[in-house]
Amino acid sequence: MASPQPVSKRQKTTKEDTPYELIYWPGLPGRGEHIRLAFEECNISYIDTAQDPKAMDIVLSQISQSNQGDALNPPICAPPILKHGSLIINQTPNILLYLGPKLGLVPTAEEDDVGLYHVNQLALTALDGLSNEPHDVHHPVAVGSYYEDQKVEAKRKAGDYLENRLPKFLGYFERVLGGEASRGGEWLYGGRLTYADLVLFQCLDGIKHAFPNAMKRIQTEGKFQKVFELHERVRERPNIKNYLASERRQDYGMGIYRHYPELDEE
Amino acid sequence: MASPQPVSKRQKTTKEDTPYELIYWPGLPGRGEHIRLAFEECNISYIDTAQDPKAMDIVLSQISQSNQGDALNPPICAPPILKHGSLIINQTPNILLYLGPKLGLVPTAEEDDVGLYHVNQLALTALDGLSNEPHDVHHPVAVGSYYEDQKVEAKRKAGDYLENRLPKFLGYFERVLGGEASRGGEWLYGGRLTYADLVLFQCLDGIKHAFPNAMKRIQTEGKFQKVFELHERVRERPNIKNYLASERRQDYGMGIYRHYPELDEE
Repeated sequence: MASPQPVSKRQKTTKEDTPYELIYWPGLPGRGEHIRLAFEECNISYIDTAQDPKAMDIVLSQISQSNQGDALNPPICAPPILKHGSLIINQTPNILLYLGPKLGLVPTAEEDDVGLYHVNQLALTALDGLSNEPHDVHHPVAVGSYYEDQKVEAKRKAGDYLENRLPKFLGYFERVLGGEASRGGEWLYGGRLTYADLVLFQCLDGIKHAFPNAMKRIQTEGKFQKVFELHERVRERPNIKNYLASERRQDYGMGIYRHYPELDEE
Repeated sequence: MASPQPVSKRQKTTKEDTPYELIYWPGLPGRGEHIRLAFEECNISYIDTAQDPKAMDIVLSQISQSNQGDALNPPICAPPILKHGSLIINQTPNILLYLGPKLGLVPTAEEDDVGLYHVNQLALTALDGLSNEPHDVHHPVAVGSYYEDQKVEAKRKAGDYLENRLPKFLGYFERVLGGEASRGGEWLYGGRLTYADLVLFQCLDGIKHAFPNAMKRIQTEGKFQKVFELHERVRERPNIKNYLASERRQDYGMGIYRHYPELDEE
């Protein structure tokens, strides 16, 4: 019987050594930021094609009408995209689901065999109400048209978002943090940081950028204190703090979270 | 050493015998329909609280501000909700992710260790572009307000959806079906029915209900033939066919997919 290979050699043949490649639009954090934060928190090196001079072409070749994927991978509809060895996948929550166990950003199956579903649920809900909906605020009528062509509708939608939808979702996460399954209310699930916390952090950060006055009022009112504390807690994680201060962290710009003063409260 | 228990007895103690309970709004297929179709295709019995006289109360008690979940489960933001033993989860793609391996609606991990991510990706994309976006067509400005108060904006959004967004997503799934990873173009992934096919079926079915004229034109033009054939193929599955003809299948009504003739093409 052959003796087992030394660990160092065995590891070289596993997927653990395969580099992670994030394919995303250049020039804004966007949905790619949720993937970056997972890597940054865990101090995992990754290739970020947004930093490549040919960043646009790299994305466009993936989503091109003539790209039908390959024998292993269906084609891609939109970035963010993760390449890991021969695997190519997209959809933000799907990439996080794949990375979660690999980066230790979810409970292990041995600790908690349904933790992955709870974390996925929390991430999906944050992305729905605190990322997709804020995007729709400035593009309520046509994603492909200019903001300037739907300003009136955007103003109406911003009012509804800040009055009804944003408090609904902040209230949901305050409930989560007040619940027993959070194990103490510091993190969303299981008494430890998961990728759902990173997603919620990024969403809150973006909304603070887009609607600073409204968020200041809401924070002052004190109804969602645990949620704002979680934002602060993630921001102070050493690796996240370093990242946010680095050049790798991009400005918000013309992405999901846009600061149009006329859409914010006065 | 004790001898192993007989299989029939062992099975009684596993989760396989635990009944599945779908908690959803009464009176419309909605997002709950994606869960129903998974059960129906696999001929799995399930409790559907939409059929319960207290259906509304059952949903409302789950999403109530005072419900913070329990020691195992974070609280719930919105239905559909799945109860399975002590587990309570929500978010349509999350429930399907949980059910997929249990119902045999994804490749097994032994056959294909990344199949789950590809199927999840396809389901997420169908839900984004062919369920959430059609919903936003009739509620572009405020989810909580009446359609009648946003009819003008809805008409603009319908035009954009039918001209730009719908063809984009139909084109994506046509690319998927033309790609090698579909293994023949009958099903979206791996040459076999997965829950992504059921999701795509339901989305197409809803869009045909909402925009019959536009969908007739698009089908006649023949650019997305494989997509329309997949819709037909799922509809003709024996269990699905029986289900669609049964009283369990509800009318579309005032849900995600609404037929407002003024939003359709002439």
